[in-house]
Amino acid sequence: MPSGGPEIEQLIQLLARLPGLGPRSARRAVLHLIKKKEQLMLPLSAALDRAVAAVRTCEVCGNVDTMSPCSICADPRRGETGILIVVEDVADLWALERAGVGQVRYHVLGGVLSPLDGVGPDDLNLDGLIGRAQDYAEIVLAMNATVEGQTTAHYITDRLAGTGIRVTRLAHGVPVGGELDYLDEGTLSQALRARTEI
Amino acid sequence: MPSGGPEIEQLIQLLARLPGLGPRSARRAVLHLIKKKEQLMLPLSAALDRAVAAVRTCEVCGNVDTMSPCSICADPRRGETGILIVVEDVADLWALERAGVGQVRYHVLGGVLSPLDGVGPDDLNLDGLIGRAQDYAEIVLAMNATVEGQTTAHYITDRLAGTGIRVTRLAHGVPVGGELDYLDEGTLSQALRARTEI
Ligand SMILES: [Zn+2]
Ligand SMILES: [Zn+2]
Repeated sequence: MPSGGPEIEQLIQLLARLPGLGPRSARRAVLHLIKKKEQLMLPLSAALDRAVAAVRTCEVCGNVDTMSPCSICADPRRGETGILIVVEDVADLWALERAGVGQVRYHVLGGVLSPLDGVGPDDLNLDGLIGRAQDYAEIVLAMNATVEGQTTAHYITDRLAGTGIRVTRLAHGVPVGGELDYLDEGTLSQALRARTEI
Repeated sequence: MPSGGPEIEQLIQLLARLPGLGPRSARRAVLHLIKKKEQLMLPLSAALDRAVAAVRTCEVCGNVDTMSPCSICADPRRGETGILIVVEDVADLWALERAGVGQVRYHVLGGVLSPLDGVGPDDLNLDGLIGRAQDYAEIVLAMNATVEGQTTAHYITDRLAGTGIRVTRLAHGVPVGGELDYLDEGTLSQALRARTEI
């Protein structure tokens, strides 16, 4: 075991499991942490402890926050537009918030329908969506432009048929096969403004 | 502040300062941690705490370990070959250990001479090297094949001139401009085996 002791080796192995990091970059990250012990390693350790203690999943929308209902669900101004944006993942919610799409609310599905991967309606936060949809004038389906994302959007449209709720989707402008979280903020804003009836 | 509360935001900002991670990949890493709270976030938090408490810089060679002298300096078999390999950084030491270069010892300079960046001899662990060099039959200078690395190697060669200690460098085989830590292990092993007199 080349890398200085079991504590260091274990830290490398855990960091290597983060998306975007492999064993080599995890080793570099750990050496960087050790070099910047006071400025980075200790604050990161403390921040991680605080986040572990504080993080909650919002029982209303599925967002990640330090309170539940989350700060978006708890903000009454967010309800006034009557717009509920349905996303696959918290990363997509964050991307839309960074794009400054306005005083909207969100619903995080926690994934997409994917029969091949064994993901069915019961595995997503779909009943929660159907339950709260009636409180909104418009449901914007902001799934990724993938086959599974669009299948999930169709499924939701079917479930909401006959309720009288306006169901829209993001305008084309989201590149086919692209993921929301990788889009620049202007594209996301435009796609939301030009959203179309389903 | 889009990303769910100050605790989460701070964790993202600290992770974004790790090499190889930017703001976007740090956000993805934090969401991944939150999703895998039990399997990854809690263990990582604990591993970081343990590493913070355990990590030492070896007072002899500059390696990072959980003891000082480090496990390499404390191992008497490592002294028998009489070979001391001088590296810029702990990452290079780890790379050589992964390559399985044998029962050698190391000396970590902690950088390279770089007048432009204001790094002079006093900023590196050079006096430590001169002090322990006499205990070894051969000093292998394993600097990166960069201008600064080679300048540093020449500086060390000059300092050791007249001591009678054999001073060698890694064989060419290290790509010009390349960094040790990115080389495959076979190349590193070969470069060490074919090391040449300076
Ligand atoms: Zn919420
Ligand atoms: Zn040592």
